[in-house]
Amino acid sequence: MASQRPSLGHHCGVAAIYSPQELNIPEKLFFPLFSLQHRGQESAGIAYRKGRNTVVYKDLGMVSTVLSRYLQGSRPSHAGIGHVRYSTHGGNKLENAQPILVSCNKGEIALAHNGNISNTAELKNRLFADGSIFQTTSDTELFLHLISRSRQPTFAEALMETLEQTQGAYSMVLLHDDELYAIRDPYGFRPLYIGTKDGMTVAASETCAMDILEVREYRSVEPGEVIVVNSEGTRSSFLSKPAGARLHQCVFELIYFARPDSHVFDNSVHERRKRMGGALATQDMGSNGTRGVPIADIVVPVPDSGNSAALGYAEASGLPFDFGLTRNHYAGRSFIMPTVDARELAVRMKLHPVREVISGKRIVLVDDSLVRGTTSRSLVRLLKEAGAAEVHLRLSAPEILWPCFFGIDIPTRGELISNAMTPEEIAARIGADSVRFLSIETLKTCLDAPANYCFACFNGEYPFRVPMTEEERNLPDRRKRV
Amino acid sequence: MASQRPSLGHHCGVAAIYSPQELNIPEKLFFPLFSLQHRGQESAGIAYRKGRNTVVYKDLGMVSTVLSRYLQGSRPSHAGIGHVRYSTHGGNKLENAQPILVSCNKGEIALAHNGNISNTAELKNRLFADGSIFQTTSDTELFLHLISRSRQPTFAEALMETLEQTQGAYSMVLLHDDELYAIRDPYGFRPLYIGTKDGMTVAASETCAMDILEVREYRSVEPGEVIVVNSEGTRSSFLSKPAGARLHQCVFELIYFARPDSHVFDNSVHERRKRMGGALATQDMGSNGTRGVPIADIVVPVPDSGNSAALGYAEASGLPFDFGLTRNHYAGRSFIMPTVDARELAVRMKLHPVREVISGKRIVLVDDSLVRGTTSRSLVRLLKEAGAAEVHLRLSAPEILWPCFFGIDIPTRGELISNAMTPEEIAARIGADSVRFLSIETLKTCLDAPANYCFACFNGEYPFRVPMTEEERNLPDRRKRV
Amino acid sequence: MASQRPSLGHHCGVAAIYSPQELNIPEKLFFPLFSLQHRGQESAGIAYRKGRNTVVYKDLGMVSTVLSRYLQGSRPSHAGIGHVRYSTHGGNKLENAQPILVSCNKGEIALAHNGNISNTAELKNRLFADGSIFQTTSDTELFLHLISRSRQPTFAEALMETLEQTQGAYSMVLLHDDELYAIRDPYGFRPLYIGTKDGMTVAASETCAMDILEVREYRSVEPGEVIVVNSEGTRSSFLSKPAGARLHQCVFELIYFARPDSHVFDNSVHERRKRMGGALATQDMGSNGTRGVPIADIVVPVPDSGNSAALGYAEASGLPFDFGLTRNHYAGRSFIMPTVDARELAVRMKLHPVREVISGKRIVLVDDSLVRGTTSRSLVRLLKEAGAAEVHLRLSAPEILWPCFFGIDIPTRGELISNAMTPEEIAARIGADSVRFLSIETLKTCLDAPANYCFACFNGEYPFRVPMTEEERNLPDRRKRV
Amino acid sequence: MASQRPSLGHHCGVAAIYSPQELNIPEKLFFPLFSLQHRGQESAGIAYRKGRNTVVYKDLGMVSTVLSRYLQGSRPSHAGIGHVRYSTHGGNKLENAQPILVSCNKGEIALAHNGNISNTAELKNRLFADGSIFQTTSDTELFLHLISRSRQPTFAEALMETLEQTQGAYSMVLLHDDELYAIRDPYGFRPLYIGTKDGMTVAASETCAMDILEVREYRSVEPGEVIVVNSEGTRSSFLSKPAGARLHQCVFELIYFARPDSHVFDNSVHERRKRMGGALATQDMGSNGTRGVPIADIVVPVPDSGNSAALGYAEASGLPFDFGLTRNHYAGRSFIMPTVDARELAVRMKLHPVREVISGKRIVLVDDSLVRGTTSRSLVRLLKEAGAAEVHLRLSAPEILWPCFFGIDIPTRGELISNAMTPEEIAARIGADSVRFLSIETLKTCLDAPANYCFACFNGEYPFRVPMTEEERNLPDRRKRV
Repeated sequence: MASQRPSLGHHCGVAAIYSPQELNIPEKLFFPLFSLQHRGQESAGIAYRKGRNTVVYKDLGMVSTVLSRYLQGSRPSHAGIGHVRYSTHGGNKLENAQPILVSCNKGEIALAHNGNISNTAELKNRLFADGSIFQTTSDTELFLHLISRSRQPTFAEALMETLEQTQGAYSMVLLHDDELYAIRDPYGFRPLYIGTKDGMTVAASETCAMDILEVREYRSVEPGEVIVVNSEGTRSSFLSKPAGARLHQCVFELIYFARPDSHVFDNSVHERRKRMGGALATQDMGSNGTRGVPIADIVVPVPDSGNSAALGYAEASGLPFDFGLTRNHYAGRSFIMPTVDARELAVRMKLHPVREVISGKRIVLVDDSLVRGTTSRSLVRLLKEAGAAEVHLRLSAPEILWPCFFGIDIPTRGELISNAMTPEEIAARIGADSVRFLSIETLKTCLDAPANYCFACFNGEYPFRVPMTEEERNLPDRRKRV
Repeated sequence: MASQRPSLGHHCGVAAIYSPQELNIPEKLFFPLFSLQHRGQESAGIAYRKGRNTVVYKDLGMVSTVLSRYLQGSRPSHAGIGHVRYSTHGGNKLENAQPILVSCNKGEIALAHNGNISNTAELKNRLFADGSIFQTTSDTELFLHLISRSRQPTFAEALMETLEQTQGAYSMVLLHDDELYAIRDPYGFRPLYIGTKDGMTVAASETCAMDILEVREYRSVEPGEVIVVNSEGTRSSFLSKPAGARLHQCVFELIYFARPDSHVFDNSVHERRKRMGGALATQDMGSNGTRGVPIADIVVPVPDSGNSAALGYAEASGLPFDFGLTRNHYAGRSFIMPTVDARELAVRMKLHPVREVISGKRIVLVDDSLVRGTTSRSLVRLLKEAGAAEVHLRLSAPEILWPCFFGIDIPTRGELISNAMTPEEIAARIGADSVRFLSIETLKTCLDAPANYCFACFNGEYPFRVPMTEEERNLPDRRKRV
Repeated sequence: MASQRPSLGHHCGVAAIYSPQELNIPEKLFFPLFSLQHRGQESAGIAYRKGRNTVVYKDLGMVSTVLSRYLQGSRPSHAGIGHVRYSTHGGNKLENAQPILVSCNKGEIALAHNGNISNTAELKNRLFADGSIFQTTSDTELFLHLISRSRQPTFAEALMETLEQTQGAYSMVLLHDDELYAIRDPYGFRPLYIGTKDGMTVAASETCAMDILEVREYRSVEPGEVIVVNSEGTRSSFLSKPAGARLHQCVFELIYFARPDSHVFDNSVHERRKRMGGALATQDMGSNGTRGVPIADIVVPVPDSGNSAALGYAEASGLPFDFGLTRNHYAGRSFIMPTVDARELAVRMKLHPVREVISGKRIVLVDDSLVRGTTSRSLVRLLKEAGAAEVHLRLSAPEILWPCFFGIDIPTRGELISNAMTPEEIAARIGADSVRFLSIETLKTCLDAPANYCFACFNGEYPFRVPMTEEERNLPDRRKRV
Repeated sequence: MASQRPSLGHHCGVAAIYSPQELNIPEKLFFPLFSLQHRGQESAGIAYRKGRNTVVYKDLGMVSTVLSRYLQGSRPSHAGIGHVRYSTHGGNKLENAQPILVSCNKGEIALAHNGNISNTAELKNRLFADGSIFQTTSDTELFLHLISRSRQPTFAEALMETLEQTQGAYSMVLLHDDELYAIRDPYGFRPLYIGTKDGMTVAASETCAMDILEVREYRSVEPGEVIVVNSEGTRSSFLSKPAGARLHQCVFELIYFARPDSHVFDNSVHERRKRMGGALATQDMGSNGTRGVPIADIVVPVPDSGNSAALGYAEASGLPFDFGLTRNHYAGRSFIMPTVDARELAVRMKLHPVREVISGKRIVLVDDSLVRGTTSRSLVRLLKEAGAAEVHLRLSAPEILWPCFFGIDIPTRGELISNAMTPEEIAARIGADSVRFLSIETLKTCLDAPANYCFACFNGEYPFRVPMTEEERNLPDRRKRV
């Protein structure tokens, strides 16, 4: 509990429903949470109003398992929130499952949170000094302590005071007695949407959660916006903008996290990914000196994360797109690999070359990003074994060089392969004929308002002081760039 | 969360181990907790030191299921605590499982608690006002808040300060970083033992938990004693005795809770129960005017809780003892009864008359106590169907008339059959030929130092102000005593 | 599959229900099977008529788990059968769970069987030669092959023909299309009862299964009786009595298997056990030369199997009976012991001395039988540790010297301690001050018609040729009897 | 059990391994079975040699759950077989899980089977008459009875005799004592491959199972080939070819069943599907009178089954391909839908339109086939809601008009929408702007040797008499073709 690394809270999904008329809220919440399953498979949970109390149910596991009980029987209610949580390597950590429900002087509060607080240490030290006890290692608990400790006369004011103190990434939904809040930090790191249908209000991380409920009217919660929905209607307040602050929307949501059929930050995810793929192609077209001479015979995605970008690459380059790899969707985390070759085997159980597509071909293999490089190595070997003449790996993300303090689970700088090797060195290491990343500048051309995005994991430019250790900050730059 | 009824914490069992040399503490804890299973079947859990951290694992279910993982592999550790929890009707309440582990300005603290705090409302109001948040509905959390909030310079002093404020019943074990505490309230409501073997220190609710670990040297933790075990050895402090206070050891531990092979309050449970049975017989011997004329042909226990008292009754009365009822030990809580006759059926699935013993006989049926009377009604019917000529129900507890605020789950006064009916009326209601309770005075003759016991559930004489509602306190006394 | 040892089929329980009016048969079957749980905890299952078909559901596990689904919803039906199966060391053997359901030229047949066939090898060889395939290693399948192969014109005749060929122990219930059979072999090895209530017919291994359904009118199925219940009513046929045959009712059902509140072979189990205990006392009274001088201070049962006999011993000897050992009923088979001392620990987790009863006393410890002697050794050690001055172990069964081929799981002759040691040697080995068995002759005095019982496991006198290996038959008799 | 419909045995996958040197066969079998999971999710199982016995383990559920135990510990063995089974609506039918293991006069035989026997009724009647009992409702058991009943002197001859009698589809693997068989029927209905690596022999339904074991040398088992692998090596025999018989390889394996990265019938599945998609485009190009005028703006696959064909359509038509639908791979069968709109909701939870791709576009939606039409209706509605201007559904299979008796689970003729409606009527019914099937003739152009395939579900031309009811055969042809 002493690490300066941002504590738990990575890649999660949140959803919330409020209805003036009683609905079967727990059942209704099942569907948006199910559609956000890709944002977290470690645990799932909901909290909802049951008469004059709030009750919570959460457990380790997938939405369809944990929440299946809510598909039977009726539980009339006005409001509820839900959460899916990303699987980390920490083992059984039911304590960190969300929503967190507390009782305090402001009433009953349940909170589901996506993001990471950066000034955790400072806030926690203050709360420690004041005698607060922590039952989880999650940032989320901080908010609840601060709200409860606030001397502000009303809950709403206590909430605002709390949010003004907590620096970092947070998109969250909160149930305070009979009222629902949807909140997004002023930097707008994580997406959050709000919509209405037949009097019911729905909030969720991505628009795919709106679609499954057939909610057609929705919009982004604004950065810094605090929306409260209660019996009097819906009202917005705004947090003060930090001095000199601009938006820092996480570009990785577009590159990798969000579902391709979703909108986040008012962008179609699929469309942006196609643009990134197109931009990768444009980079390549110019790269070998002779614009228009293709470097390969076909474009193959790493399914499913590379699908959209690969299609974009194919369209922009004019090279044919083909399914050179298929994915076994039964491969999950439900069994333990028996041998030392576990990682290699895991790739082999999940991704399979289609020999007829691959054999004898020069291939552009499109994936979203490169972290440690181990999976790519296995993948390139698979393709070469299947007869690929050349494999040119293209990543729709720039080189990842810095840790994220806003909710993405990126390893330490020392573990990031791009901190140790140039693309050429990486190619040699993983057996590819070339490796190329989308440059930050090119990535920006794929965005409408690039100034509104966070690129910190690529360029280390954090919007404010982050709790990085000096050792990590000063890691010698071993890249030998040309 | 607004009820004045004492919150959760009923009938639990605690155990703890400290060893200067590393042992497989989690495995070691399995056994005492297993032997305390009768004190709580709802949930089980342990917290133990793992390197420089404390980790917790708990879940709903029985010890053999929840903690079976600890019977495989080795987890060297210096100290750990554990808890079993009584099953209430509140459904899935994993939140209330213990130990509770928190991180605070005093370090890491894990607590496992048996008992109930009486001034919960007052303490909670103060903590609410100060901004504390509550994640459980258990008393146990109160201690942790108070310790953390204390301005005392050391943990030990903060603990003492906390305990001086909390009025009520508590026998508990606590892990504070690398040191272990065993604590018993000044009234001594709940039992707690401490012992040593080969340098290892063990604390547990009953001595049966010592026996399973073959710990031969043990003693009662004294009322008001706070024992700390750490690398410097074992040291005791004492809480100040409340003004005018005497001991209030729970006589129900002897009557019903504890295992017959255990010692609690330095009494052999089996031996005391035999005495109570004997005293019941003595009451009866004098009762029909003609001392020495037995009222029945045989004495039959309700197994297993009535076994010892029935044997005592038989010995004192000279009537033969026989197993007129057998118990199906496969009957548990693992299935849901299908029909409206559920309670009747539950009795029928659990207890079975032995026709040859019963048929044509006048029977003294010995059980420990009478709460609502529903089970007894089913039981008397079973015996009569099996041919019993007469059934004389004898209870080794006095009439239960008042709720308990110190850890026993007794229903409200209105639900207690003895508040509504005389023994004669009860006999008529349940179909028995007579019903007789051990009188409080006679019960006292079965104890060495009756002044050291609590009889509040029988006589309403609480040692201090308890959070009973006025309505309950003023329930009209509908008993029509002769 | 080549062993000559009788194949699977040990200690089981069966139940069946037929009703001209549709009842919720699967739910109804739950209760008698639950009450027969002590006869087998490995697997449970039922087969019942569902419209014009028979369906089966069975799984490894206890009745309350496997069949809990039948406590929800209604499944109107006319007839069904059920089975509980003893847990052997063979691991996951779902294949052998019962009932077995087959489709054949005689219709659909489901069979649930308690007992063991002795001429398995001969029958199986014949069926093998004729081309039958075996999907289980259970005797039960044999019956089904033989019925199907029979050239008799009707099912009833085919059944009779089959039963005339199968030599051995069988009490069974059988569902043939819409009719129910209850069958007991001519030797009457295993108990089987049949009764009626409100037009419903119930059959079950023991009368405790009648009691739970409140069936008051019942009788033993006669040895050799074949009862069919169908839309035309109930009709009995009788198998021809084997030449020179007498009854061979298993005396171990009375000594150990059956529930004390049951009747088997028209005896009260509890009552017979008391008599055996009394006979043990009589043996002892005369044994030390001076009739009437007690050898000990108290009589203590090994709970629960020794309860009845211990009480009988106490009554006959005039020695006081006391609960010197308590049993932890949570101890089951649901967890794996961690250490090499597993067996010792298993005893310690299950049985606990009550020090006050034991300490300083000379104890008569009454148990039902001695097989390998390992558990007794642990138990004697426990009692001595608790301060017992002397421990005199008394067994209400004679010395077990021979294997059983009729349904009891007795180890090979070489593993039976009584084949290797005299009672005196056993006493020395297990640390007891004396060990004494009920003699066969004395046991017979406890029975009304001893000629109707099987004592083969004590005296090797099997009613017909059994498939014992020559090696086992000729095991040198290492007993050195006085 | 009286239905004339082919009994269970639909869409399954088989795998087998033989090794002269002992390997951890159960673990090795895990991987090919895992890679064949798409062929059956209802149950999984293996049988393998353990010393001189064969043991079986099977259960309902997925490979990764059922067989995970085999990823721990080592089980040296020479040979084993495995099976995955298709999920039908029959509920808990553990009885039908495979492999089936029997003991008989030919030794121990374990069988895992993919396909369906057509003369089941005739064979079963004969076996019934002879007194065989059936414990399953699966065809597979038939083989075992026939082998056991055969009077042929050797197992091999008994097997050949059996296979000559069983008419229908069977690709199977069989373990007979220490030898392994891989068998394919003379019509070659289902695929089966055999390969070797480092002395180990592997057989499996599809080549993807070879790939995961890195077996590079493999070939199709020939139609009618019976391969035995034992300590003497590998030897092939051939069944006599039925008079006038040609091959009847199931074209649906290419259209839908097999994994795109697999080879079946020596075809690349992905490549053939692309051809079918291309042929669909060619049909359309000519269809609107003006060859070359595209009917739409983009081509969208129903993922993942329509991916390959859609790509083929796009390439042939010159229309752009795009991912207009994404699939939620967490959607499985692990939860029960709550409402009456279950099917609609199931589609909505699984497939999601990408609005940016769809909106305002005329879409060619490519799927593999149309059975009842309900899913397509939901899908078209989803696309229209997402703004599609037009939806033209194209199926890479012809109209399905007849049931399959060779292993595919096709509903009765009356349930097949194409028996009731023309494509135009279907379009109107499901809300599409047009619906068009690949014609049988065009489909044939996508195959190298169309005469070697079975098209019976499209044209009713079965290779031999099939057990169709007269009622079904004579269903009035309600199609009103133009």
